[in-house]
Amino acid sequence: MRKIILACGISLDGYIARPDGAVDFLFMPKDFSMAPFFKTIDVMLMGRKTYDVAMKMGGLMIGPKMAGYVFSRSLPPGERDGVVFTSESPAALVRKLRRLQGRHIWHMGGGELASDFLRADLVDELHLGVVPVLLGEGIPLFPGGFPQRDFALLTNKTFSKGLIELKYRRVRKPAGKKKR
Amino acid sequence: MRKIILACGISLDGYIARPDGAVDFLFMPKDFSMAPFFKTIDVMLMGRKTYDVAMKMGGLMIGPKMAGYVFSRSLPPGERDGVVFTSESPAALVRKLRRLQGRHIWHMGGGELASDFLRADLVDELHLGVVPVLLGEGIPLFPGGFPQRDFALLTNKTFSKGLIELKYRRVRKPAGKKKR
Repeated sequence: MRKIILACGISLDGYIARPDGAVDFLFMPKDFSMAPFFKTIDVMLMGRKTYDVAMKMGGLMIGPKMAGYVFSRSLPPGERDGVVFTSESPAALVRKLRRLQGRHIWHMGGGELASDFLRADLVDELHLGVVPVLLGEGIPLFPGGFPQRDFALLTNKTFSKGLIELKYRRVRKPAGKKKR
Repeated sequence: MRKIILACGISLDGYIARPDGAVDFLFMPKDFSMAPFFKTIDVMLMGRKTYDVAMKMGGLMIGPKMAGYVFSRSLPPGERDGVVFTSESPAALVRKLRRLQGRHIWHMGGGELASDFLRADLVDELHLGVVPVLLGEGIPLFPGGFPQRDFALLTNKTFSKGLIELKYRRVRKPAGKKKR
């Protein structure tokens, strides 16, 4: 099945951006590459605010082999500028995408959309690139407002300049463990 | 110099406890031990709420070789039940402790006290045990309200059951990097 992978960079205190949306604190050291990940996906999902930030930073790698969906309650639905704006619920869109053949689906983060996805239990994997800084303020990846979600660690890798990459998969039925 | 080490267990979304103070989601796998860390410290610092939780859970390992300080604005200062209650500022107490000979100083966490320490830039090392669960709500280790603090990764270790242990040291003068 096509997996929904929530993957993004965060500060050590869990922020995906500064209060004004800036992501200058994130970095990719030379020994780290997103290329292997990009080979596993062909859809990018994001919230409207993340879309705006991506556009400001030079655009998205959308094309014939990569579809982009932008969740927005305010913008009219439909295809524009290479992406599909949608006002559907995350569950409805994911159901539709999962019925189609394809690679995995990248959830690019954006705190509100990530919470919506976690509330609907649509996140199958979490890939976090954690940079060694406490920002003290910003836009949180996990602002809360969803029930407990258990994960299992897949990989934990250290890169130069203190970047660590953590991959987790959702564990939907913890065996032999009573739920609180 | 005696270091202040902020060390505690957190959920993947950065909570040290559930909203009611419960820490049932934390665990220590068989291949993980706090013993090497305990050998490096001889003072425990905590907020009053963390103290209350520790008392409820069976007490603290205070004794002739381990001093305990509890920050409280409401309780009368002084030594009681083996610990010292203090209404001093973190900076004042730390200055005093650093003048004394001794091992490093364990800051046990507690979101409010951690923010106070980070605001005063008193944290020299961060040791985080991260468990593979998103709680969705709880008491955050880093509730914010302090300026950016840069760190360098010291170690990143993986233990069984998906526990990871991250150790960082505070970098107070990032070389060749303009501050935002």
